[in-house]
Amino acid sequence: MSEYLSVHASGNASSTDAHDAHALANQPQPPSQQQREATPRKPQYNKREPLVFFIMRLNLKAVLLLLSVAVMIITLGIYMRCAAFSFSPDLVRQLGKRQTIDTLSSSAAGQELSAPLQDIECAINQEYSIHCKRDENANEVYVPFSFLRQYFDVSGAVTTSGSGSDPAKFNWMHSNAKVNLPKGKYETRGVFMYFENYNVEVRDRVKCISAAEGVPVSTQWEKRGYFYPTQIAQFALAHYSKNLTEPTPRVHVLEDADGNQMDWTTPKTSNMTRIWHHKFNTSIVQFETTIGYESAISIQVNQTQDLVLSVDLLLVTNSSSLMVTVLNRDTKHSYNLHYIAAELLLSVQESNIYYGLGSGSLNKWRHITRDLHIDVQKGIVLGDKRSPLKVRRSDLEVLSVAFLGIGFFDNITLSTSDHLAHFYDAAEWFVHNQDAKTGGWVNPVRRSLNGFAELRPGWISAMGQGHAISVLARAYWHSGGDVRYLKAASLGLQPYRVYSRDGGVLAQFMEKYYWYEEYPTTPASYVLNGFIYSLLGLYDLNSTAPGKIAREAGKLFNQGMHSLKKMLLLYDTGSGTSYDLRHLSLGVAPNLARWDYHATHVNQLLLLATIDSDPLIAQTAERWKGYMFGKRAKHN
Amino acid sequence: MSEYLSVHASGNASSTDAHDAHALANQPQPPSQQQREATPRKPQYNKREPLVFFIMRLNLKAVLLLLSVAVMIITLGIYMRCAAFSFSPDLVRQLGKRQTIDTLSSSAAGQELSAPLQDIECAINQEYSIHCKRDENANEVYVPFSFLRQYFDVSGAVTTSGSGSDPAKFNWMHSNAKVNLPKGKYETRGVFMYFENYNVEVRDRVKCISAAEGVPVSTQWEKRGYFYPTQIAQFALAHYSKNLTEPTPRVHVLEDADGNQMDWTTPKTSNMTRIWHHKFNTSIVQFETTIGYESAISIQVNQTQDLVLSVDLLLVTNSSSLMVTVLNRDTKHSYNLHYIAAELLLSVQESNIYYGLGSGSLNKWRHITRDLHIDVQKGIVLGDKRSPLKVRRSDLEVLSVAFLGIGFFDNITLSTSDHLAHFYDAAEWFVHNQDAKTGGWVNPVRRSLNGFAELRPGWISAMGQGHAISVLARAYWHSGGDVRYLKAASLGLQPYRVYSRDGGVLAQFMEKYYWYEEYPTTPASYVLNGFIYSLLGLYDLNSTAPGKIAREAGKLFNQGMHSLKKMLLLYDTGSGTSYDLRHLSLGVAPNLARWDYHATHVNQLLLLATIDSDPLIAQTAERWKGYMFGKRAKHN
Repeated sequence: MSEYLSVHASGNASSTDAHDAHALANQPQPPSQQQREATPRKPQYNKREPLVFFIMRLNLKAVLLLLSVAVMIITLGIYMRCAAFSFSPDLVRQLGKRQTIDTLSSSAAGQELSAPLQDIECAINQEYSIHCKRDENANEVYVPFSFLRQYFDVSGAVTTSGSGSDPAKFNWMHSNAKVNLPKGKYETRGVFMYFENYNVEVRDRVKCISAAEGVPVSTQWEKRGYFYPTQIAQFALAHYSKNLTEPTPRVHVLEDADGNQMDWTTPKTSNMTRIWHHKFNTSIVQFETTIGYESAISIQVNQTQDLVLSVDLLLVTNSSSLMVTVLNRDTKHSYNLHYIAAELLLSVQESNIYYGLGSGSLNKWRHITRDLHIDVQKGIVLGDKRSPLKVRRSDLEVLSVAFLGIGFFDNITLSTSDHLAHFYDAAEWFVHNQDAKTGGWVNPVRRSLNGFAELRPGWISAMGQGHAISVLARAYWHSGGDVRYLKAASLGLQPYRVYSRDGGVLAQFMEKYYWYEEYPTTPASYVLNGFIYSLLGLYDLNSTAPGKIAREAGKLFNQGMHSLKKMLLLYDTGSGTSYDLRHLSLGVAPNLARWDYHATHVNQLLLLATIDSDPLIAQTAERWKGYMFGKRAKHN
Repeated sequence: MSEYLSVHASGNASSTDAHDAHALANQPQPPSQQQREATPRKPQYNKREPLVFFIMRLNLKAVLLLLSVAVMIITLGIYMRCAAFSFSPDLVRQLGKRQTIDTLSSSAAGQELSAPLQDIECAINQEYSIHCKRDENANEVYVPFSFLRQYFDVSGAVTTSGSGSDPAKFNWMHSNAKVNLPKGKYETRGVFMYFENYNVEVRDRVKCISAAEGVPVSTQWEKRGYFYPTQIAQFALAHYSKNLTEPTPRVHVLEDADGNQMDWTTPKTSNMTRIWHHKFNTSIVQFETTIGYESAISIQVNQTQDLVLSVDLLLVTNSSSLMVTVLNRDTKHSYNLHYIAAELLLSVQESNIYYGLGSGSLNKWRHITRDLHIDVQKGIVLGDKRSPLKVRRSDLEVLSVAFLGIGFFDNITLSTSDHLAHFYDAAEWFVHNQDAKTGGWVNPVRRSLNGFAELRPGWISAMGQGHAISVLARAYWHSGGDVRYLKAASLGLQPYRVYSRDGGVLAQFMEKYYWYEEYPTTPASYVLNGFIYSLLGLYDLNSTAPGKIAREAGKLFNQGMHSLKKMLLLYDTGSGTSYDLRHLSLGVAPNLARWDYHATHVNQLLLLATIDSDPLIAQTAERWKGYMFGKRAKHN
């Protein structure tokens, strides 16, 4: 026999109840039943003293009687005490009702004791059992969240406030990802998506920022580290966006050999002079030291907060270097950051952290921009991979800057940030690291996607191409028309027209709709978020490039938007989205998008909706947003 | 501040615990703590009697003392009793621990009292709040099932046994639909799917079984009732399948004018004679009565259980009829079922229920097979639509059979069932109700699917075609080769080759894969279950028809199976299935399949897997089956 639970209106009505109880909790209340009745316990024991006094004046019979009465009291006491632990079901029911009413009317709603519930076995799909609780009077069964969390992949946490008056609350979160509403129509010249929130360099899978290139080095798919075009572009787009959203940085010029000069400590065997550079038409500093740190020319800086160093530097010999000493004021430990003329990426020896400027760096002027916090942190991680110390930016202090060997420098600054420098470092990387024949920025690592043939090193990603084009389009515009950026962006369109099997990124769904592949797999995988990023690159070039290049980008963009509209609903599962279409290509289970990827889908559609008025995009975005809050498509 | 709950291993470990506790409940156990300690209560009161006896022999002081002691006892008693309702949090904690241990080691696990939990507000996605329970010690939050049921669309019920020793249990059911595992390779000559479980005629949307045609009349999309080919075919396939799975029916021949003769009550103005029919080469009964029930020739039957009446009948005048009187032994109410020579479908006047044999029924021999239980029940429903009485088959008794007017009859029988008669009635219907030009069995009603243009009366369904072909292929085989069935089945293939817009049922997905449409909508809707049924019809004809017709059906079947394999995963949401692909056609939310349709998908794939060895089908069926138990596709 089975009795089905009636569905309670658990929505607004319950909500109101909970809030009412909550509101009451903040008002002064008369003492609760517990408080009132627990108080008289101690005086009760004091009453025994006159009893002893009486006993002394009574005869033996009375004493015996009293003793037996005492025994009775103790017996009765024990019995009644024990009864508290073994009351009959009837008592329980009364108790239950009483305290339910208390809960609704008394003060500390969240912390109130409620009716004792019964244990009940919950048989889950006749497969296994868990322990649940039952409130027989309310015809309700309570299911433990630890089970639900796993079964439905939801999350939740108890929030506690410090004070006792504010009750604990349980926050049920269907998804823990975040939707970013666009602030207005998408503009290529403006912020890219919501990338002002990105901080690429702090990611664990970023080994460090190459000192030779000024761009991140990834360890995601190969531990030795490699340049990952998609990541480099995100680094650039994040800094470009931060430059637009963050306050103007504070820039502290230490030495420019002109208006700003510092008093350099120059050992006897060393030499530093300010000289006129005819070509640059400015003064620069020339230095020459012997080997060994003690011969370095140096300045004390004692600068906190402004941790982005930049300098124009030319090193003459490969034993020359720039050395910056940074103190962790929390641990009192200091680190020496060495920027050396070598092919090295990153090396650590105790407190000495070495970044290589590249073997080709000798006798060339280089503008170097380093986030010293990142450089210290990545050095620490490399030095202690197991449990690296996490250094707070606010704990760091730049103690000194020094030069060794033979060389020239100018314009040493420390700033709170220098986003544009990072952005241009990345833009330059794309100009100098493009395959001239294919127009691709290649991924130099293997990549295997479950079920697909492995991608061999050298593959191109539509997402990488699109991101790079988004960077280059911005660099072209921001630089006031530097055609090197435009040419690279234009050449970057080429792989959009070449099928994956021929080295490009193009796929066709059901021989009908063209798709730009984040991963050019065989068969096609149709990753959604990478495709949309590839479209944004096309949009950016279309809206910044002149004439023919704009038209070419626009044509590819329109072709992609057409496919997107026809294929978008293929990703809709009615309660979330698929990350890709491998289920269709391989005949396997759908590869569902985890919530942060789902949120990316939503964010991307919301952004596209600002530049394409087709209601399909805005409507789908809204529905997909709802899925993050537990909404579902209807069933028939 | 938020503290995340740790995920408990709620799978096998918990299951074992629960089962152990359960197993213990069936063994004799020493009395529990409650039982042991509740017992001494009554003797305690008896001990007060000697106390009164002592008081009488004591002095005033002692009496006063004893009275004060008595007051103390009562005070203490009340205090301790009250303490039971107001124990301090510390006591609660001890109690909790103690009873948790009890639960694990004692007998009535399911009914055990557990530690009182705290009320806690659960904020659901920051949108609204519900009341939850918290076990702070176990770091667990309990969520009410009434919320979960609605939020996740799961079901559950508390099962209680009559006896107190077997604890109540909560059955959590992710889906309440049933998977039917095929018993072996699918065989056209055998059972259709699991349709032996179908009982088409009892469905509410079946108005009645037409006496003119012997097939059901639907009211699903039009209240006046109409012939719905899909339903008629399911009626036929259910009876064909029941004929194979049920025991041989008991057949009771009442009168065949030969070896079985009954003593007919023949009023004076009436006449009945047994005559030789030269053409049939058998004896038949001739009757002639005046108008009015009192003149009818009749027999008393008093037959229970065997409620399927069959008779060979020829009525000469349109005031002639067959009348069967049936008693509901529960309500003592009797019903007269009149089978009359009229164009009427079903009409009710108090206890008289009229079924029309059709205006064309005069002077033609008809073999009539009626389930008297169904005929009574449908009459009752028509007579009292608001709260029709539900009649139990076992309550019915056939009291009498009577004939009125002028006519002939032979072979009156009552049987437990006559499935093949129903099957052939339906097969005949398909032979006689096919559009000779298109080969379609048309649906004479409007049908509107949300978002699509309305289908106008006269539309053809691939499901109806396939089901009809499944019926006709069986009739062709079972009848030993009646070509009328084969010809109708063959003609029924025609709409599979004609696009929906041209009056057929053919669609093409992405201009690539051919699909047979249950509903020939514009744009196409691609209903999955109807498509697979349409394939089964093709398979059935392919495996029963000779030569060319088999090849034609086989070609259409292979074309459909190819599409199915390419498109099957489009329906996979990772946690269930879509009913159709309207989300792709219309750009709207997916139309998710409710669990019974999902189960149909699974059942169909399991069946197809017995005739197609492509692992895609069997693997997908298994995964989809898992979804019914809360399994989900992985997310990335």
